[in-house]
Amino acid sequence: MKNFLITKSRRLRSTPFSSKIEKQGVKSYTMYNHMLLPTFFTSPEEQYNHLKEHVQIWDVSAQREIEISGKDSSKLVQLMTCRDLSNSKIGGCYYAPLVDSEGGLINDPLIYRLEEKKWRVCIADSDVLLFAKGVSAGKNLEVDIFEAKVDTLAVQGPKSFKLMEKVFGDKINNLKFFKFDFFDFNKKKYLISRSGYSKQGGFEIHIDDIKAGLELYDYFFEVGKDYNLKPGAPNHIERIEGGLLSYGNDMDIADNPLECGFDKYVNLESDIFFLGKENLKKIKKEGIKRKLMGVKIESKTINLTKEIPIFNNENNEIGKLRSAGFSPNFDKVVGIAMINKKYCKESQDFKINIDGKSVSGKICSLPIV
Amino acid sequence: MKNFLITKSRRLRSTPFSSKIEKQGVKSYTMYNHMLLPTFFTSPEEQYNHLKEHVQIWDVSAQREIEISGKDSSKLVQLMTCRDLSNSKIGGCYYAPLVDSEGGLINDPLIYRLEEKKWRVCIADSDVLLFAKGVSAGKNLEVDIFEAKVDTLAVQGPKSFKLMEKVFGDKINNLKFFKFDFFDFNKKKYLISRSGYSKQGGFEIHIDDIKAGLELYDYFFEVGKDYNLKPGAPNHIERIEGGLLSYGNDMDIADNPLECGFDKYVNLESDIFFLGKENLKKIKKEGIKRKLMGVKIESKTINLTKEIPIFNNENNEIGKLRSAGFSPNFDKVVGIAMINKKYCKESQDFKINIDGKSVSGKICSLPIV
Repeated sequence: MKNFLITKSRRLRSTPFSSKIEKQGVKSYTMYNHMLLPTFFTSPEEQYNHLKEHVQIWDVSAQREIEISGKDSSKLVQLMTCRDLSNSKIGGCYYAPLVDSEGGLINDPLIYRLEEKKWRVCIADSDVLLFAKGVSAGKNLEVDIFEAKVDTLAVQGPKSFKLMEKVFGDKINNLKFFKFDFFDFNKKKYLISRSGYSKQGGFEIHIDDIKAGLELYDYFFEVGKDYNLKPGAPNHIERIEGGLLSYGNDMDIADNPLECGFDKYVNLESDIFFLGKENLKKIKKEGIKRKLMGVKIESKTINLTKEIPIFNNENNEIGKLRSAGFSPNFDKVVGIAMINKKYCKESQDFKINIDGKSVSGKICSLPIV
Repeated sequence: MKNFLITKSRRLRSTPFSSKIEKQGVKSYTMYNHMLLPTFFTSPEEQYNHLKEHVQIWDVSAQREIEISGKDSSKLVQLMTCRDLSNSKIGGCYYAPLVDSEGGLINDPLIYRLEEKKWRVCIADSDVLLFAKGVSAGKNLEVDIFEAKVDTLAVQGPKSFKLMEKVFGDKINNLKFFKFDFFDFNKKKYLISRSGYSKQGGFEIHIDDIKAGLELYDYFFEVGKDYNLKPGAPNHIERIEGGLLSYGNDMDIADNPLECGFDKYVNLESDIFFLGKENLKKIKKEGIKRKLMGVKIESKTINLTKEIPIFNNENNEIGKLRSAGFSPNFDKVVGIAMINKKYCKESQDFKINIDGKSVSGKICSLPIV
């Protein structure tokens, strides 16, 4: 694969940590919510192995947070998602697909309930701010909507628990998965959630004071030697294996949440009202025609920059590969593909063209085990 | 400046022309509307000089087109922009700032009126699709909204007129600035507008048939030798000098159209209704506190990745530089800055810190002459 440079500008926003990670040797970026998101320092494979054994800190500031507050805030948040949030609690993080009126996916954020009437929508890569502003303006809602001045560090990996305890004290051990609370370091209070875009365990630290956040970053690396702490980034091999979907890669506005396996977050029976409800009811009644599945491919390399069609042994197209990477664990390429319903079965054989060569593969469940 | 790679994936969409321009030697990309936008092949300076003398073809597919059609389409389009479109004509292209309810800028597209009830919003870098969908859902409008399967080639430079005549015949000479019409090549019809993100003259070809578009691309380079045709990209030096603003660089949602010099596109007196009207009336009445201006800086280099503060001789901050580049024409750095109103005068002196060195500059009008 040919390499290309990224041309920086104000529009591709740097993060408060960009200059630090550049000194630490970041080599490549992607763009995410109009912001730089690091992708690797050494190599994706090396970082995959390290992440599964040790602990990494990731600059995931690009995971922007849309704050929605005011009298109608709960109404607006519920209008945008098919997940029933009527029983959501302060201190909870809710993975909640956002859908448009047709039921098409707009984003798959983690929604934090900060207060009774104050929410933070921690978004994947699309302008949820504009969707929220549009719905609110159209319905004349009483809400404040803005992108919060918050930048996030993820601490991920099996040793993240010990490292976080060292920095924030043993109170951190009481924090349950997909909950958040406030923790002190150096006289500053941090909102920390037990969450993050890996299956190796970890936390996300939501930083609203840049100066303090930079000091915290340095402190992590001071005390992190004992845990073999390294700077890292969301690892696409690990997240594919773990079945953590990526909006824009695995699914987009042309897909609905039922096709993406979000069934348990699609609450059509409860009496909540959200924009895509009628269309999703119709889709559910008719049954979906395709679904996101895992794949394993008999190849050591792949170079995916767009959907690649997948064929059965009769040369009929049965789906499209959307994400893929070489897994050191399986010693072959793993990926996520949108597959026609009929072929969504474990061990379905397929063929795919990689760099002009036909190679074979098998469909599997997500996560890939 | 350190260089960094871009990590490609499906989420960073390639265009139909990506593989062609990569063979032609593109070196660097930016992201724009979740798509790859080339930035340079040789160097920005070399391409600046070539653009002003000859003709270039740019892959500007990243300038996505949001199609809005149906009974309420005109109402929706007008709701989103402060420009009065009530007298807009089929065949016209309208530069129209989009604003939210507060009057903040959401995008600055060129809006094409294709039919009485069919519009194309050719957007800068933000998800106007989601804003339009939000407003429409909130107001229960009867519209179809989608991102059109259209990819655009820009033909820019003083020799673009002769080259386009060669390819599309002399009918193209009748096309006036900011108008569009349909033109034939090789039995295919193309929507072509006299428009583009440079001040050197030119056209944009809106391609809905990829196969035909790729053949057209190759044909341009077959006949283009006589005109010294080269592949290129929007040139940030040329566009800064020309006063062509860049959404996300020069202005964003925290700015209003009056601060950006869009006064003639802010129609507060007419009886049209748009979302930000009351707030913009208030802003206009109170008077703006800052404005986008040109700057000239006594330096041969600059490396801008975020706003850089600008100080007067008494060391008070008087504004922020948002875009900048070395201009071979002025033999110094030129840029666009948001300047406190009091200092928005031609020849105001200022100081700015570039790479640790204080250098002097002068404020000027836009375009920079």
